[in-house]
Amino acid sequence: MKAVGVIGGGQLGKMLTLKAKEMGFKVIALDKDPSCPVSSICDELIIGSLYDTEKLHELAKKSEVVTYEIEHTNTEVLRHLEKIGTKILPSPALLELVNDKLQQKSHLIKYGIPTSKLVREVTKTDSIEYKSRMKELPPFPFVQKARKGGYDGKGVAVIKSEKDVDKILETDSFFEEFVEIEKEISVLVARDIKGNIVSYPVVEMVFDARSNILDMLISPARIPEDTSQKAISIAYDVINSFVSSNLKAVGVFAVEMFITKSGDILVNEIAPRVHNSGHHTIESCLTSQFEQHLRAITGLPLGSTKQHTPAVMINLLGEPGYTGKPVITGLEEVLKMEGAHLHWYGKSTTAPFRKMGHITIIDEDLNSAIQKAKILRERVKIISENT
Amino acid sequence: MKAVGVIGGGQLGKMLTLKAKEMGFKVIALDKDPSCPVSSICDELIIGSLYDTEKLHELAKKSEVVTYEIEHTNTEVLRHLEKIGTKILPSPALLELVNDKLQQKSHLIKYGIPTSKLVREVTKTDSIEYKSRMKELPPFPFVQKARKGGYDGKGVAVIKSEKDVDKILETDSFFEEFVEIEKEISVLVARDIKGNIVSYPVVEMVFDARSNILDMLISPARIPEDTSQKAISIAYDVINSFVSSNLKAVGVFAVEMFITKSGDILVNEIAPRVHNSGHHTIESCLTSQFEQHLRAITGLPLGSTKQHTPAVMINLLGEPGYTGKPVITGLEEVLKMEGAHLHWYGKSTTAPFRKMGHITIIDEDLNSAIQKAKILRERVKIISENT
Repeated sequence: MKAVGVIGGGQLGKMLTLKAKEMGFKVIALDKDPSCPVSSICDELIIGSLYDTEKLHELAKKSEVVTYEIEHTNTEVLRHLEKIGTKILPSPALLELVNDKLQQKSHLIKYGIPTSKLVREVTKTDSIEYKSRMKELPPFPFVQKARKGGYDGKGVAVIKSEKDVDKILETDSFFEEFVEIEKEISVLVARDIKGNIVSYPVVEMVFDARSNILDMLISPARIPEDTSQKAISIAYDVINSFVSSNLKAVGVFAVEMFITKSGDILVNEIAPRVHNSGHHTIESCLTSQFEQHLRAITGLPLGSTKQHTPAVMINLLGEPGYTGKPVITGLEEVLKMEGAHLHWYGKSTTAPFRKMGHITIIDEDLNSAIQKAKILRERVKIISENT
Repeated sequence: MKAVGVIGGGQLGKMLTLKAKEMGFKVIALDKDPSCPVSSICDELIIGSLYDTEKLHELAKKSEVVTYEIEHTNTEVLRHLEKIGTKILPSPALLELVNDKLQQKSHLIKYGIPTSKLVREVTKTDSIEYKSRMKELPPFPFVQKARKGGYDGKGVAVIKSEKDVDKILETDSFFEEFVEIEKEISVLVARDIKGNIVSYPVVEMVFDARSNILDMLISPARIPEDTSQKAISIAYDVINSFVSSNLKAVGVFAVEMFITKSGDILVNEIAPRVHNSGHHTIESCLTSQFEQHLRAITGLPLGSTKQHTPAVMINLLGEPGYTGKPVITGLEEVLKMEGAHLHWYGKSTTAPFRKMGHITIIDEDLNSAIQKAKILRERVKIISENT
């Protein structure tokens, strides 16, 4: 069986590895933390920075196909490795495009994919000038997005009025139109080496207001069928736009979208990898996003994306005020609930809002799953040992 | 999270470990083969015989609870370890009882649990005398079962007429009544530390005529509802009989039964562990047998055993005539089938009829799943590299 190289050893890498081991693949991972979630289950952990040239070369050498569970890696090295024959999927050029949110946005606009309007590009110098009011701001409200390095709401500033101006991020970025969001949704799509594309049912994402991290995921999304069809069609357009740009779009992609108050669907962001909005597929779909990604990048046929049971997923975030060795409270009661499944990532320390695990609830009745999830969220807390 | 010690590093241990890692447990395994299926995913593999006193002590020392994925271990050492404080579940005394098929049968008879009639006990000396006709045989047909060490049909001889007499096993054993089997079924039950018992839907087992290994498992079994209820009730009786005998019956148990041509349900054999007849629970039930076993032995509440989708499981057995590094043929076509899932155990060599992996197919329509499984069985072959 093939050896799959994974850049990053976090929870996405762990779930990918669990599935890979089930299917009989070998997994070589790269992460700087020797006790990262993947560490105890991969065949080999290369310890080093995800930007380290030598370590990336070592990973490539040991793997028959390389993929990533996080975008923050050295795409320049990956481009070189690809050139000298390493199979890296999705391709480094695609990752590079997506990693720069301005390039990503320009790409979407170029291919006529609906997204909020780009107001203007902002350099770091510009941003400092905007913040100190040396430069005239666009009319309120607007949104600023850092070009690079953002995740889980980091790298985004919503500037609604004068009093938000000090939130302006001092970095290379851009301003985009502010849209009134009715609902946030995500469409997971997968494309195989032969060019077949499949989509999972649209999911609905509810964010934690404090941390801006995905709090509850509801699948299928509670939206009209035609909205859902439209969202899936946009996600296909996104993948096809990569193909049109000669970017090797093979693997699982998450296309995050807004449904606006005025009923438009706008693409917010694309993740060229397995994604938090697809965790529920493990228990509720015929093929999990992790198996799907492995099938795609190893040249196997894609599996069915059919969802057999409605599902709700909640992230278990580190409770604010607690740092250190994690302790879950309220777990027993939770595991009594029909259809509740614990995923515990095995991180050695908890921190405020850190993703420590998740619970998926599957239930024939989606509303009942949502009710259970709400109870869970109240009862399960991740605190630390010494408090 | 707790460290779970697992005696045995085969496929059952591997699937148990994958689930344990998902839930955040640590796993320490004991196996004599450094490249056993568990080896690449457990936190630590202690390499040694499952009968080795020192190694079992080491495993006990490193684990908060010890369990086993195979019956063939040193129960004397386990009894001692239990006495000095190691939590071993199910208890070594229970394992010892089950391991001796004559004791197991006597236990069933004592508790009024239906099983085929015990004809007589046979010592090794007796068996040799029976085989050489120095001793008068019971009337044909009858079945001989070895008291110890049997698995996958080994240790069982069916003596239908004079010409089968040379099949008599020269070992401590017993003769039991031969019954005409209509169907073989299995009931998986789980009992937690507090004494709660749950059962999975009854499954139907179809055996490979050549190897006597489980070939196809069908869940739910195609039997009338009252037969199913009766079988489940018998499985509960089995667990309760252990409790009545002061044996710590905590964990998952497989109770294999015959439905006879005359419509009786007889207990054939009990496995005090996760079992081949429960593999389909991974994809088709709210809680897999592996998660259930872990919940039970770590003191967590049991999960729901509800089956959300009908399932068929086929074992991938090494093709006769092939030995060496395994190769799967026909896989691609199989993975195109909706609801088909590959489990590849990662054994380094294949041998005739060796269990190399399995495929589970889930499908809303059980007959359609069976049809798919039949096609799969024809197309997927496990051969070896150098032939």
